[in-house]
Amino acid sequence: RIKASGLKMRLCTNETQVTRENFVKKLRLMGFDVSVAEVTAPAPAACRILKERGLRPHLLVHDGLVPEFAEVDKTNPNCVVLGDAAENFTYANLNDAFRVLMGMEKPVLISLGRGRYYKETDGLKLDVGAYMKALEYACDVQAEVVGKPSKRFFESALAEMGVPPEQAIMIGDDIVNDVGGAQQCGMRALQVRTGKYRPSDEKHPEVKPDAYVNNLAEAVDIILQQL
Amino acid sequence: RIKASGLKMRLCTNETQVTRENFVKKLRLMGFDVSVAEVTAPAPAACRILKERGLRPHLLVHDGLVPEFAEVDKTNPNCVVLGDAAENFTYANLNDAFRVLMGMEKPVLISLGRGRYYKETDGLKLDVGAYMKALEYACDVQAEVVGKPSKRFFESALAEMGVPPEQAIMIGDDIVNDVGGAQQCGMRALQVRTGKYRPSDEKHPEVKPDAYVNNLAEAVDIILQQL
Repeated sequence: RIKASGLKMRLCTNETQVTRENFVKKLRLMGFDVSVAEVTAPAPAACRILKERGLRPHLLVHDGLVPEFAEVDKTNPNCVVLGDAAENFTYANLNDAFRVLMGMEKPVLISLGRGRYYKETDGLKLDVGAYMKALEYACDVQAEVVGKPSKRFFESALAEMGVPPEQAIMIGDDIVNDVGGAQQCGMRALQVRTGKYRPSDEKHPEVKPDAYVNNLAEAVDIILQQL
Repeated sequence: RIKASGLKMRLCTNETQVTRENFVKKLRLMGFDVSVAEVTAPAPAACRILKERGLRPHLLVHDGLVPEFAEVDKTNPNCVVLGDAAENFTYANLNDAFRVLMGMEKPVLISLGRGRYYKETDGLKLDVGAYMKALEYACDVQAEVVGKPSKRFFESALAEMGVPPEQAIMIGDDIVNDVGGAQQCGMRALQVRTGKYRPSDEKHPEVKPDAYVNNLAEAVDIILQQL
């Protein structure tokens, strides 16, 4: 309905366990008519940064994400790219990434998101942000975060659409990463009361959405009504 | 020579991979005449805290340390005790400890030390502090650190000897954990220029030892000369 109305649309995700291709495949199976070109994700954003700065990554990411870095030179690494590696977060792999960082004069750590945790069917799992903090502390560096809530990440999504922030609206379930990040970029933001949403979000000390909606369909209703 | 001089002596260690028994065994093999009663270590200090506060730990520690917690009730845990678990720092074990913390109304995380890393023959390894930071961030809690540089840890070593801080001197190689920790407690502290010592320590922004010595034997010479 958004696309049929003529509005421009972009999916901003911090998904780093699969390629955009597989992410879109999943959404299409759910009935969403979306293409890879409509997805803004951390891995391709990181690839652009690596290319711009001549960085060759040591990857500590999920196996499913590796194809996103196919075109990147990974020989003789001069930075570490950290994603939600899940089962790849082994003691040996963490020590390997740590040693690569400690071997640099000025360690460069790029983190695909800074999520604290997420829930899967078998329970809560530590997200990439926890491992980012471990490496930051051990190496005494500050990671560069690519993905939500980074301002630059939202800006690149806007640039891809050719839309200024004041004409864009973010819809998301995460009070800090979706709503807070978009607002810092000058966009308005709706929080859906589904998914990650918790009633306590409505008393968040720093972030206040422009409005709440009960679900994604209601967000679309409201946006189309105002056209 | 220190003991023969009549001075009281205490070994303050952050060793959490083995029991005090095995730690002392290693030192005796190197020719040091020391007993378990002369060792102040994080695990027994943690056991006292657990007992005082009625805490039942979920342990994420090295297999070699588990016997130190033999007398502690570990059923239905209401806190997590984190040590340098080394190979036990698996993705599954970290998620388990995380879930225990998230299941508490007010998570209690006790960390045996806050070291960033250490070096073994096969290379640098992340130390307990890195994993402590990961769990702190994910759970939004602050760990209680038992061991150096915690003031309480030095105080318990002094209490065990019955010596006030101004009559005690610390000898150590770690500028922050040994020297800084002891000084905060009112003791004087010597830094040995061996082991962890790095020339850059002499320009440390916060900690300045009372004196430097080239090695442990020289520290003993100097102390005995002043008697």
